[in-house]
Amino acid sequence: MLTGLNIVIMGGDARYLEVIRKLNEMDAQLTLIGFDQLDQYFNGAVKADIDDIDAAKVDAIVLPANGTDENGFIETIFSNKPVKLTEEWLEKTPAHCSVYSGIGTPYLERCLRSANRELVKLFERDDLAIYNSVPTAEGTLMLVIQNTDFTIHGANVLILGLGRTGMTLARIFHALGAKVKVAARRPEHLARIAEMGLSPFHIDDLESHVGDVDICLNTIPAKVLTGKVIAKMPAQALIVDIASKPGGTDFRYAEKRGIKAILAPSLPGIVAPKTAGRIIANVLTDLLIEKFGEESEEA
Amino acid sequence: MLTGLNIVIMGGDARYLEVIRKLNEMDAQLTLIGFDQLDQYFNGAVKADIDDIDAAKVDAIVLPANGTDENGFIETIFSNKPVKLTEEWLEKTPAHCSVYSGIGTPYLERCLRSANRELVKLFERDDLAIYNSVPTAEGTLMLVIQNTDFTIHGANVLILGLGRTGMTLARIFHALGAKVKVAARRPEHLARIAEMGLSPFHIDDLESHVGDVDICLNTIPAKVLTGKVIAKMPAQALIVDIASKPGGTDFRYAEKRGIKAILAPSLPGIVAPKTAGRIIANVLTDLLIEKFGEESEEA
Repeated sequence: MLTGLNIVIMGGDARYLEVIRKLNEMDAQLTLIGFDQLDQYFNGAVKADIDDIDAAKVDAIVLPANGTDENGFIETIFSNKPVKLTEEWLEKTPAHCSVYSGIGTPYLERCLRSANRELVKLFERDDLAIYNSVPTAEGTLMLVIQNTDFTIHGANVLILGLGRTGMTLARIFHALGAKVKVAARRPEHLARIAEMGLSPFHIDDLESHVGDVDICLNTIPAKVLTGKVIAKMPAQALIVDIASKPGGTDFRYAEKRGIKAILAPSLPGIVAPKTAGRIIANVLTDLLIEKFGEESEEA
Repeated sequence: MLTGLNIVIMGGDARYLEVIRKLNEMDAQLTLIGFDQLDQYFNGAVKADIDDIDAAKVDAIVLPANGTDENGFIETIFSNKPVKLTEEWLEKTPAHCSVYSGIGTPYLERCLRSANRELVKLFERDDLAIYNSVPTAEGTLMLVIQNTDFTIHGANVLILGLGRTGMTLARIFHALGAKVKVAARRPEHLARIAEMGLSPFHIDDLESHVGDVDICLNTIPAKVLTGKVIAKMPAQALIVDIASKPGGTDFRYAEKRGIKAILAPSLPGIVAPKTAGRIIANVLTDLLIEKFGEESEEA
């Protein structure tokens, strides 16, 4: 339980309704900033403006998936009022106050460093990334089915990278009956691909493996699908690039070559906001219990 | 090979381009009726009107998936001219001439019986139905991902029927990490469901198994999802009914109850026309070789 813990939720999309629901269920004392247009009612949670709250009493701050923009403004889907996080405000919080953001942005990193408060980047955690790979893979499935006139079953599928998402994609496309090849660099990854019953090859040999590809799924955030590689692909191939923006594909060349290439870097919040919200909520709850633990129950 | 065999393709959608491609590759002599607006060129295949051709020389006739309408007209996606199949015309064909349709319609059955020609209903064949279950299952996946805000992984999925499509759905949704229950009636089906590591139950007990369902997939062409059953489902459940029209769901009651229910009876031609076309082409080729066999090579 998180009884008595003062948590401020600042902005966020539909996923954060699951975060609010879960933290509320854990008996935390919630203040919601940037939710004034939200119809849903959470018993005990209080809607407020940032200027109304006493920073000195805040134990934890939850920011949206994308943190803040370069001027410190926070994305608020459920409000029209701008919300800005400042160093001055953060300095008024107690020293133990932690900020939980999806990712770190230059503004946020700078601000937190100056104020000397802890910044936890949830999306950089392996556990969250692995849980998130499930909605990512299902979103990829959807895009592939929508954008091909053939079935995944029996198709030649090439997956680039056996990271946290690459492994989930490999497992799922294999289970659907695709012929799956996976490109990787690290020897332990190549070994794991072979163990999974799939065909491994070294990413440096990519050019010689794309000649018969039907579907190419990239998870590597580096320019791997270069013009030279795309030139060797069949014209009816489909590329889905789910690496962080700007992806790893030469989209300009793909278009010129007439190859359909889709950049889809943040599928979980789009295809399964409820599940994606629960994933954030569960990991966040674990971290809060770990940090504030049993004391909060006495608070 | 089907060298010298005179085959008339009458109408059909994008799937039938694969049929034309394959039969052409097998060296059959093709006449295309209802394709005058088709840009694609097939070497050796001749476009014609039904009145231009000599019925006495026709060995086989390929009709669209849905056969004819109740007046004998044939669906022609690639033409504006109406094409009608008549008993009189069929009687002019040689006695060995066979008609290959997706399904049988009352008009078609009557017409073929009177003319005393063989009618092969491709979609009633087990092999074709099993191959077709793959694009059907992938189309179902797409609909489910599009229409839920949670992942299939971890969801309570209920599949009604372990027929040719039910088994494919069960296997695929299980592989994606769903908790799958399958309803069936026949003891050998209930045994197979258990063998697959899934939870079987008798379809007569349906009412007591829907209380926690997230996704319900129906393959049974009979009123199984009655108002009484739907009344016991959670409000956020999704029903996808892929049984032949009109499906097995009380759609009126589902809507009243606020439960999303989708009737999607012919997914293969929609989500994977190329694969669905190849499936028809392969089964058709096998049947033609079986019937006309080696003789056709001498013709």
